[in-house]
Amino acid sequence: MPSLYFEDLDEGQTRELGTFTLSRDEIMEFAGRFDPQPIHVDEEAAEASVFGGLIASGWHTASACMRLIVDGLLIDAASMGAIGVDELRWTAPVRPGQTITVRNEVLETRESESRDDRGYVRNRTVGVNEEGEEVVSMVGVNIIGKRDA
Amino acid sequence: MPSLYFEDLDEGQTRELGTFTLSRDEIMEFAGRFDPQPIHVDEEAAEASVFGGLIASGWHTASACMRLIVDGLLIDAASMGAIGVDELRWTAPVRPGQTITVRNEVLETRESESRDDRGYVRNRTVGVNEEGEEVVSMVGVNIIGKRDA
Repeated sequence: MPSLYFEDLDEGQTRELGTFTLSRDEIMEFAGRFDPQPIHVDEEAAEASVFGGLIASGWHTASACMRLIVDGLLIDAASMGAIGVDELRWTAPVRPGQTITVRNEVLETRESESRDDRGYVRNRTVGVNEEGEEVVSMVGVNIIGKRDA
Repeated sequence: MPSLYFEDLDEGQTRELGTFTLSRDEIMEFAGRFDPQPIHVDEEAAEASVFGGLIASGWHTASACMRLIVDGLLIDAASMGAIGVDELRWTAPVRPGQTITVRNEVLETRESESRDDRGYVRNRTVGVNEEGEEVVSMVGVNIIGKRDA
């Protein structure tokens, strides 16, 4: 049974979702499958690039955030899926071994007009590196069931 | 050497990027790592859900699109990274074994105001299932080098 319903999620709530670290091998494996650009899969080419070394695919970074969003929020919630994501931004490179700290903030909640049993929760997730620099952010809209539904 | 530069990308250009198919095992493996919600990792729970069966994580679907964007566009382009993505939408479930056809359209090109050597290319990627139903779409902004730079 979920412990978090639409009624429990309020504008301004923040949640510390924990951290993730991507290893060199994980970065190259993910990118080899989904984003085989030289900066993600070829260490020599990455060193010669403007990035000066291997960096994670933005989709890997976003997926790693998703894991923390699931573990720290959705797995306990009456989640009914997601509408989508806006403002997904990769603002600084994520390099092997860096620790990225992830937090989530509820931006807005809105009851569904067409269905009594659910509402929409717009929330921003942000990942920050050890230097306090934001590396990734995104705004998601999740569909969350109501307690009495 | 890249064959596609900023000057080669014009508003209205469309590219057929090919297809992808996600197997049951791939869906469960990706989601086990990045999105372990029951509808993505637990066949029984997925069957009992509103989706009536296992569906792919939206991040898996988006990443599979990215692979086709890289293979069919970025790998030949003077790519200098990406600003981010907006309007990422999951409009229908992606189920094991479905063939998703992906195409890309250039929406807008704009020269950088601060740097002479590059421009921004806003482009929409859409994935459609065998029934012609859109399952995923997103608008990316990529940074592409100019030919003479």
